[in-house]
Amino acid sequence: MKEQMIGKPAAERLTENLKIETDLLIEKGIKPKLLIMRVGEKSDDLAYEKGALSRCSKIGVGVEVRGFSEHITTEEFIAEIEKANNDTEIHGILIFRPLPKQIDENIIKHIISPKKDIDCFNPINSSKLLEGDKTGFAPCTAEAVMQLLKHYNVDLTGKRTVVIGRSMVIGKPVALMLLNENATVTICHSKTKDLNQVCAEADILIAALGKAKIVDDKFIKEGAIIIDVGINVDEAGNMVGDVDFEKCNDKAAMITPVPGGVGSVTTTILASHVIKACKYMNKI
Amino acid sequence: MKEQMIGKPAAERLTENLKIETDLLIEKGIKPKLLIMRVGEKSDDLAYEKGALSRCSKIGVGVEVRGFSEHITTEEFIAEIEKANNDTEIHGILIFRPLPKQIDENIIKHIISPKKDIDCFNPINSSKLLEGDKTGFAPCTAEAVMQLLKHYNVDLTGKRTVVIGRSMVIGKPVALMLLNENATVTICHSKTKDLNQVCAEADILIAALGKAKIVDDKFIKEGAIIIDVGINVDEAGNMVGDVDFEKCNDKAAMITPVPGGVGSVTTTILASHVIKACKYMNKI
Repeated sequence: MKEQMIGKPAAERLTENLKIETDLLIEKGIKPKLLIMRVGEKSDDLAYEKGALSRCSKIGVGVEVRGFSEHITTEEFIAEIEKANNDTEIHGILIFRPLPKQIDENIIKHIISPKKDIDCFNPINSSKLLEGDKTGFAPCTAEAVMQLLKHYNVDLTGKRTVVIGRSMVIGKPVALMLLNENATVTICHSKTKDLNQVCAEADILIAALGKAKIVDDKFIKEGAIIIDVGINVDEAGNMVGDVDFEKCNDKAAMITPVPGGVGSVTTTILASHVIKACKYMNKI
Repeated sequence: MKEQMIGKPAAERLTENLKIETDLLIEKGIKPKLLIMRVGEKSDDLAYEKGALSRCSKIGVGVEVRGFSEHITTEEFIAEIEKANNDTEIHGILIFRPLPKQIDENIIKHIISPKKDIDCFNPINSSKLLEGDKTGFAPCTAEAVMQLLKHYNVDLTGKRTVVIGRSMVIGKPVALMLLNENATVTICHSKTKDLNQVCAEADILIAALGKAKIVDDKFIKEGAIIIDVGINVDEAGNMVGDVDFEKCNDKAAMITPVPGGVGSVTTTILASHVIKACKYMNKI
């Protein structure tokens, strides 16, 4: 049994530090506040919302949830976002995605204020991510991966890292953040040939393809560090990752469980972004 | 002697097509026009400017050059850019970089209209590059690499590509563009361990580190395709690339010369961006 990279201790250590920061802000009369804008009632969104409420409450970050009809129009939704942009008591805005089809995300993403855009929806933040400019907000899940690596003292400089997946939410951002920490980064995807051989070159493998248990022992080299970002439901109805944990566990030096790995850290990163936005806004 | 990927025929074929497009626009009374904004008189800028003037003239794209004192302030330069943004006869704006130290590029990049920003300075265009949204403008040199690969019928799908360099002008953009064409992409840089071994995995190697003749035969595998983006001056005062052409030529299946490779295509891409911007602006 190798070392498991459990998310909970990473989340808890960060939570403690964030609570101290928040207490100091509250002493100054400033209460960091997150607004969650949820369209419809998707179970994934509701589950994440529950986690975010609980984590923010532990830290002392206020949360308001505004739910909207799944039939809301782009114009109506824009008006709601602008209201939130102009509300000085709100420091961070989280909009659950994907939005329903009638809402044009390509318009919406420009509306959310980049200063309150704590999950990297606005192109200003995507471009900061590309530039390695840390004044922006990276996607929370991608940053949770980085936080987990940091918590478990994984040195990234010069390491071969392989990311499976090229989405705007995980694959590309995590690749850029690894690059920013001086890792040598390979990005794989559905069109990659000999995927398992490419992955087996990795000192650190990040699986974010969204397919249950695709990554087995043929994908990893002895002593690799495996981060599983996948959240899938298997045939028996259990939550499983992209990595076949049982098959990889012996070969890996460290491995994240699913659930209990990356997912446990994400809402803490979300809270940290609200606090960061709050401090910027108050010039602290 | 293997096949050389000479830039000239790629540039000339594209030039012919662009000339046809431009002639059609001119028939409609629309003359695509580029504004070059040059601060100071750096020799690199002047050389590029000369090439751009000559290429645009062949295609029928108008060019105006506005030169500014190297002591211009950020405020003065902003006013000049805004004037160009508002000038309906100007379709594309090229600002030579880096700008002198007193000018804050982090402010300037937001001023240039993304619709006229034909060399990917504005974050709106960087973020489109990251998203793979082709309505934006990629950096011309990075796109010249892609054009050269296309001209020589290099299939990218699933191919192992390695990019050496992670700059915002070449390394990162070319990596993203390769990814967008379904290549498996590895990004290397100064902190990469065993650089030559990582590069030797590449079916296609893009050298953009800016160090004369660093890449020799130990960096390439038999039959690899080598694109050299480097422009350096060697001890004898000759222009050389990042690749040691003589040492790599026999092992490579195809290789770009320096000069005469990527550099010969860049100004044609620049002209194509002016035409693209002109068509957007006129809703054609």
